[in-house]
Amino acid sequence: MADAQPRPGGRTARVREAVLRATRDALASGGLHGLDLTAVAHDAGVGKTTVYRRWGTPTALVADLLVEMADRAGDRVDTGSLLGDLEVNAGRVQRTLADPEEGGLYAAIVAAATCDARTAAALEAFYDRRVAVWAPCVEDAVGRGEVPAGTDAAAVVRAVSAPLYYHRLTRTTPPGEEDARRAAAAAVVAAVAGAFASGA
Amino acid sequence: MADAQPRPGGRTARVREAVLRATRDALASGGLHGLDLTAVAHDAGVGKTTVYRRWGTPTALVADLLVEMADRAGDRVDTGSLLGDLEVNAGRVQRTLADPEEGGLYAAIVAAATCDARTAAALEAFYDRRVAVWAPCVEDAVGRGEVPAGTDAAAVVRAVSAPLYYHRLTRTTPPGEEDARRAAAAAVVAAVAGAFASGA
Repeated sequence: MADAQPRPGGRTARVREAVLRATRDALASGGLHGLDLTAVAHDAGVGKTTVYRRWGTPTALVADLLVEMADRAGDRVDTGSLLGDLEVNAGRVQRTLADPEEGGLYAAIVAAATCDARTAAALEAFYDRRVAVWAPCVEDAVGRGEVPAGTDAAAVVRAVSAPLYYHRLTRTTPPGEEDARRAAAAAVVAAVAGAFASGA
Repeated sequence: MADAQPRPGGRTARVREAVLRATRDALASGGLHGLDLTAVAHDAGVGKTTVYRRWGTPTALVADLLVEMADRAGDRVDTGSLLGDLEVNAGRVQRTLADPEEGGLYAAIVAAATCDARTAAALEAFYDRRVAVWAPCVEDAVGRGEVPAGTDAAAVVRAVSAPLYYHRLTRTTPPGEEDARRAAAAAVVAAVAGAFASGA
């Protein structure tokens, strides 16, 4: 029974790590349509039966990968100002999306979510967790009086990511550092002006 | 020879219209992977040979559909204020993305672009044309002194669409009217503050 718990370093955890690494590689190179459980098992060096029994479908693999990605993703920072915090956040998002491999992985998962409801739900849960990690930056800014009380912290955090994702998904060149700075600056200015306050 | 020109009402134009309508339906329901030239020809009531000769590949169909979508898309408005103009723009984008069929079509094309370079180039050209239609709203606002000289008009227009697309692609509920108002308001406030001015 103890072995069924995904303890770090345990066999179950090692199998999951190898399978999710293979899932990530397959998704980044071929998208959801290129994701095959037998191929993932082979690339992970894991028995096919294990992968079929434990995950069962390509979308279950993607959902579990998103849980792991959220677990591994970085914490918020606290620079002492909302602009400082959100510039760090924007820079991380921009570098991820501009990285050919990481950016390709995110784009593939977003694409998969457009045609699969389970992946869409897992993707939403992923971003909800990421937003919850960064929302305290905005709440702290409310506490410092930088932005109005009643500011929708999640909306501000999403406003930083939005232009960077939109850029990555609708243009043929990835977003750059200047785009990240502008995304953070625009979100902060709008938040300060109360554009994200309830009733605004 | 004259018949080879896509005159409105001509046979060539009618064939294109029927084929692109079938392409649009197939994309919205099954994505790029569900797009089959023979099925499109059948649904359009057009000879298979015509579709293969004139378009040849699913991605060529999508590229031509994007040209037609840009041709048909609405003009800018002129309400006399940047906020008024961009609220109209945001409302149109939001209603398109929230419509199950239209929103599904856009999501399918964005998804297709993540795994096909030709579709990505056609999608970028589509948004470049749409942005060029709306950018004069920002240029007029510069002229009225509403926003600083040197404001990147295209960036402001893209900033309105970005949160609405990001919402549509990363959440399981579509963006609403309130999201559209907020997208326009945040972009205007940031533009007024100079967040989209060169060197900002």
